[in-house]
Parts: sequence; structure tokens; C-alpha cells
Amino acid sequence: MAFINDNFIILSETYLFSEIARKVAAYKEHNPSANVIRLGIGDVTRPLAPAVVTALHQAVDEMGQASTFRGYGPEQGYDFLRQTIVSHDFEARGISISPDEIFVSDGAKSDTGNFGDILGKDNIIAVTDPVYPVYVDTNVMAGRAGMQDASGAWNNIVYLPCTAENQFVPSLPDKHADIIYLCYPNNPTGTTLKRDELKKWVDYAREQDSIILFDAAYEAFISEPDVPHSIYEIEGARDVAIEFRSFSKTAGFTGLRCGYTVVPKNITAHSKNHERIPLNRLWNRRQTTKFNGTAYIVQRAAEAVYSAEGQQQIKETIAHYMHNATLIREGIEKKGIAAFGGVNAPYIWLKTPDNISSWQFFDRLLNEVNVVGTPGVGFGPHGEGYFRLTAFGSLQQTTEAMQRIAGWKL
Amino acid sequence: MAFINDNFIILSETYLFSEIARKVAAYKEHNPSANVIRLGIGDVTRPLAPAVVTALHQAVDEMGQASTFRGYGPEQGYDFLRQTIVSHDFEARGISISPDEIFVSDGAKSDTGNFGDILGKDNIIAVTDPVYPVYVDTNVMAGRAGMQDASGAWNNIVYLPCTAENQFVPSLPDKHADIIYLCYPNNPTGTTLKRDELKKWVDYAREQDSIILFDAAYEAFISEPDVPHSIYEIEGARDVAIEFRSFSKTAGFTGLRCGYTVVPKNITAHSKNHERIPLNRLWNRRQTTKFNGTAYIVQRAAEAVYSAEGQQQIKETIAHYMHNATLIREGIEKKGIAAFGGVNAPYIWLKTPDNISSWQFFDRLLNEVNVVGTPGVGFGPHGEGYFRLTAFGSLQQTTEAMQRIAGWKL
Repeated sequence: MAFINDNFIILSETYLFSEIARKVAAYKEHNPSANVIRLGIGDVTRPLAPAVVTALHQAVDEMGQASTFRGYGPEQGYDFLRQTIVSHDFEARGISISPDEIFVSDGAKSDTGNFGDILGKDNIIAVTDPVYPVYVDTNVMAGRAGMQDASGAWNNIVYLPCTAENQFVPSLPDKHADIIYLCYPNNPTGTTLKRDELKKWVDYAREQDSIILFDAAYEAFISEPDVPHSIYEIEGARDVAIEFRSFSKTAGFTGLRCGYTVVPKNITAHSKNHERIPLNRLWNRRQTTKFNGTAYIVQRAAEAVYSAEGQQQIKETIAHYMHNATLIREGIEKKGIAAFGGVNAPYIWLKTPDNISSWQFFDRLLNEVNVVGTPGVGFGPHGEGYFRLTAFGSLQQTTEAMQRIAGWKL
Repeated sequence: MAFINDNFIILSETYLFSEIARKVAAYKEHNPSANVIRLGIGDVTRPLAPAVVTALHQAVDEMGQASTFRGYGPEQGYDFLRQTIVSHDFEARGISISPDEIFVSDGAKSDTGNFGDILGKDNIIAVTDPVYPVYVDTNVMAGRAGMQDASGAWNNIVYLPCTAENQFVPSLPDKHADIIYLCYPNNPTGTTLKRDELKKWVDYAREQDSIILFDAAYEAFISEPDVPHSIYEIEGARDVAIEFRSFSKTAGFTGLRCGYTVVPKNITAHSKNHERIPLNRLWNRRQTTKFNGTAYIVQRAAEAVYSAEGQQQIKETIAHYMHNATLIREGIEKKGIAAFGGVNAPYIWLKTPDNISSWQFFDRLLNEVNVVGTPGVGFGPHGEGYFRLTAFGSLQQTTEAMQRIAGWKL
């Protein structure tokens, strides 16, 4: 008699974004002529950069010729890409990372989700609240979350509230946490940690022998100088932090799928008999056993992002999105609604007016002005009363959405 | 204090194929002029089919234009591909599978490795022996294997020996198994189960309330009529079997990464309080949470495999490999060595002469004739004394390897 993993049944059946998609589809079924503008899911809309397109065509041609065809690549990624990543993303910032500390993958969602495979079930997990749902849901699946209360909080997870009251800067936990997920620039709030704030976390992790899982998927959107692009800019982080990076938002790879994870060789965690085991070795074993590498053509595409042309082209795209971010933030503020983020990140986090709930705001925005956003409570209990808008639409759509909102009788 | 998943430290550090790669690299370092022919890892060498290359170029162009750009796709795969799979791989064989029972992924290694996420830790796992290492290693990681004995066998895993003595047809287990991994046509032995033999397993699973994880990655190589291409050709299999498929060997996608998993909606397993839970729902939750879909361009490439041109082109490639298989099998038999497989699968499984061990045979073959194969014992205790050669080389390389073997003083 086969048994399921019971942790799955304590998890609500639907992943947040699937639930939003379902609601939007239902609305469109009843209102087929409605022009719904989606500023909800964090998906890009601008095409791939010309340098990336050229690299893809070249790599496709290589795959069509016996002499240049590539079969299985290294599960950890090709050297040409690992090397390029190291020099551009780390060495150029004075950070020492070696290519065998880079693991190329099909995206940061897979990596942040799968990283728990190498960690013990009894670790105490801390997450900022609100938070990207993947961190929590995958820990529920692994049995680390305990039970959920009426607010949606899990009793074994340490929540670090981030709200307007603390300027979205989480306090160090009042009880010990073994594994701390930090995402900066932050999804969903669009806020950041300045260098001195991030240093507190690195110091905490060093002192408590904890590990930080640092998701830097939005680093390309940073515009202010005192916001670190990598956690390894902080002294001592190499001993305690794993960093997740993604080409999804940086270079519009959401439909192409490529990211990478940095696992410094000196980071260790304890076995049950208190040996210190290097996580680089375990992640390598996990990836070589349960993953078969990222498509060669996609790795060539990622490499092209770092070329001089590629860098210029993605900067233009990011500037486009950040212009949208400014429009959204200003438009929201003009309505007298408090807005956060949108300066170093493509997300605007707003406080719902008159204390209406996140889902009520979602329903009204969809039904009354045909704009889709993401209810804050979908990101955790302290997201209740907040709402996320994303800057990834086209300029035309974003402008129209903000015009509708400007005329909206709330 | 962060803890690792201790199951990783009871696992030998190196994945089989990484160990082979290491040995070959060491040999080449000491013998830089040696022309080493690799008939070891099951990696294809022929380029992508022209129909696939054309589809990739078209899809890349779509990704380079705002009007046709695609961002996040459905985690389960695009409808165009799921629908095409259903009609060609199932409906055409009289099998009823619906598109929402198909989950497109980046390959069968990921899916067979990750499927255990949705299964309880206490299931009793059965595997054929020898077996594709991913099935066993991922169950070790999940804590289902117990401890390893000197032969390499894990005490909580039920092994189903497949040797020349039973014509590589496993007997039903003498103790109950909850989850049974079957791979047919088989990797590594190259042998098959005829329809009546496979039916015994479906009947067993129905009677025992077990689940079969059926890996059909090599179905395109079947040449004999009484060998089922899909387990769903067997009556009742829809209630008990998950099927894994791959484009890797079928269409040379080892470097492109695409496969799919069939999870019929009526298959259930038990929760701890004996509710029956549909696995389709759980796998959907797993994939939407820990995976972000396969690249759009790769899904278009997979679709092109099913076009009339694509089908003809991949048939030519498969015929090429199967010609190699015949050469290898005949060459081995001419040496007076017993050989199996190579008729419905691209693998030839040979009995090492004079009872020398698999690794001794590997070392001698590499050192004396510069040919790389895979030691049978790497696939499990009952693989000791056997050795795998693959038909995926070029005709020229395969011919040369067999000439070297013909002249080899064993």
C-alpha cells in the first residue's frame, strides 16, 4: 500500500499565482470583452535582447551539426558560463568566488525550492513576512513548518515581520533560527537592505552558526549605491551565505529558464554526530543525481547577457521597467495611498486604503478597473492589508492601468 | 546551528558517471595522445534533426519580438505540446490519456529523481538489479534505503535480480513493495519485458495497492512487435502506473533537456489516516511550487519531433544507432563473450569473461584498447561481472572500437 508525503495535504492546494490565474480566467470568461491589464505576476514582457537572440541562433546551429553538437553538459553548468559569471558578477565587485562554487540551473525557483533537499528536517527556518511563497511551501513539503494557524502562519517557522512600522527592515529573531531566507531587493515589498543592515544578518549567522539563503534575483534593478548587489560584499558572508541569482528578471529569461546558485566551498553544516560537512559537496551530489544540466543553447544565451552589447541592451530594458515603476509609485501616491519599493526593485508595495483586505482590494481592482495585482496576504500574514503591483508591463499598459486607477472611485 | 540531511553522508560521494569521467580524465592526462572512444555514458552524438533546428530558430525569433515573446509558461507545459504528446504517443496506440495528465519537464532524470518528493518516507521501494542509479540514490537521499551492506545493497530496498540466469526477467518480489521502479526497454541491460511479463507487474501492483514508476525513456528503440511502448498498453495500468518519457534518446535532446511524466488522474496513494489522495494533484502542486516550466523554445523543438519530417528524421537517427548496436553485439559475441540487449534498446550488456570484475574489465578496456564502457556493478550488486556498452557513438568510432576489441588479447 503506497503512501503519500502527508506534508502535501496540510499545504493549501493551490499555489498563489495559480489561484490568481484562476480568478482572472473566471473573470474573463464572464467578461470576454474586458481588457484586463496584468500587473500581478512578476513576469517580464520585453523581448530577449538582440545579443541573446544572436547567441541562441548560433548555438542552435551548432546543435544541428555533428561536429559542434553538444549532448549532456556538466550538471553544474559549462565552464564558459561559470567563468563569465565569476568575473562579471563577483570579481568585478572585488569578491572572490571560484567557478566550482557556481551551479548553473534552470532558475532560482528550482534552486531555492530544491536546496532544502540537502538540509536536515529539524532545522528552524526563518523567513521575512511577507515572503516569496516558494520558501515557505517547500519547507512545508519537507516537514519543517509544523501546523498552520488561522492567520496562515506555520508554528515551526520563525516569521520576521516587515511592515511600514519597521520600514520593512526585519529585526533579528528573538529565538534561534538555523536557516534564514533573505531576498533583497525584496520580493514582494520592493524594499532593500542597506549594507549595514545586511551586515547585522551576516554577523548573526556567524555568531549563531546559521546559514543565510540569500535570493538576489532582483540585483540588476538596484539604483542606489549603498545597497549591496551580492551578500558576499559583506565581510564574512562567504562562511555563512548561499546566494541565488537569476537571469529571469535581469535579462527577460522567464520563458528561457536560467539561474545559478553560489555555494562557497567553506560553508558547512552539522551532521547528527556533529561533523561539519561542506554544503558545496552535498549540493553537487544533489545536482548531479537529480538534475541533468541546463540546455547548452540557454547557457550560451546567458553568456551573451554579459557581452558589452548584451549589458547595454539589458540596461535599457531595466530602465524601461524602472520608468514604469516610477509611474506606478507616483500614481499610487497621488491617490493618497502609501506606496513602497519601486526604486531598487520592479515591485511597488502599497498599503490598501481604509484597511480593506488584500483579497478585497484584488477583487475590486480586477472588477472595477480590470487591473490584476497580487494580494499581499498571499505572501504571508504580515502582507495582509498590502498589495503588490509590478513594473514589468509595457509602458502603454502601465500608463493605461495608472490612468484607470487615477479615475477609480475607491 | 544548521544541520544537513544526514542521508547524504551515507551515500557514496560520487555519482557513477562522474566517477567514470574522473577515471577517463586521469587516463588522458597521463596519455594525452590516446584516442579514447567513449561507449560508456548513454549520450547521443548525432546532431538535432533539421525539423527540430528549424523549430528552434523560429521560436528564438518569436522570443526576440515583443508581439510574440513568451515569459513564464505553464509549469506543466504548453497545451500545444501536451496535446501533441497525447495524440501521437497515446491516442495513436489506443490509449486514453488527457493533456492534464501530462507534465512536461526538463528531463526524465529530474522527474524520476524528484517524484519521491510526493511520496511518504516509509514506502518500501523495489528496484530491478542492476538499475539506473538515480532511482536508488534519490531514495537514499529521502531516507528510504536504510543502510548499505558490503555488496552495495541497501537493506530497506527490495532488489529484483535480473541476470542471464533468469533471462533478465525479474520475478515478482517475495515481500511486499509499495513503489516499484521498472525501466523498459531496460537501462542498463538493453533487455525488454514482453507484454505478458509486464502484465504480471500491473496485476501485482493492483493486487498489492502498489505504484509502478515506469521509465520508458528508450521506447523509440523498440523493434519487436510484442514489446509494449507504454505501460498503459496493459489493461489496468492507468490505476497504478506513472510513466516517464524523454526526448533525450528519442530525438537527441540530451543537451536540450525535455521529457514528460504521465500521472493519470485516477491514481491514488494513502495518507496516514487512510484517505486516498490523487497523485496528479500532488505532482501538480510539487511542480508548480518547485519548478517553473521548460523553456518555450525547447517545447517547440519537442513539438517538431512529432511532425512528419521530424518523425522521419529521428527514425533515421535511431536506425543509425541500432546499426551500431548490431555491430557491437556481433563483435562481442565473436570474441566468445555473452552479449544481451541491443535489439530493442541502444545498450549491449555483456558478461565479463573469466569472471573478472566489472571495474577490472573497465580498467583493462580503457588502458589496453582505449575504449570506455560502464562497469555493471555501478548499476547494482547483480551487475557485478557485467559491463555496458552503448550504441550512441558515431559509426566510425563504433567500428574502430570493435576493431580494437577484435584484436584485443584478453
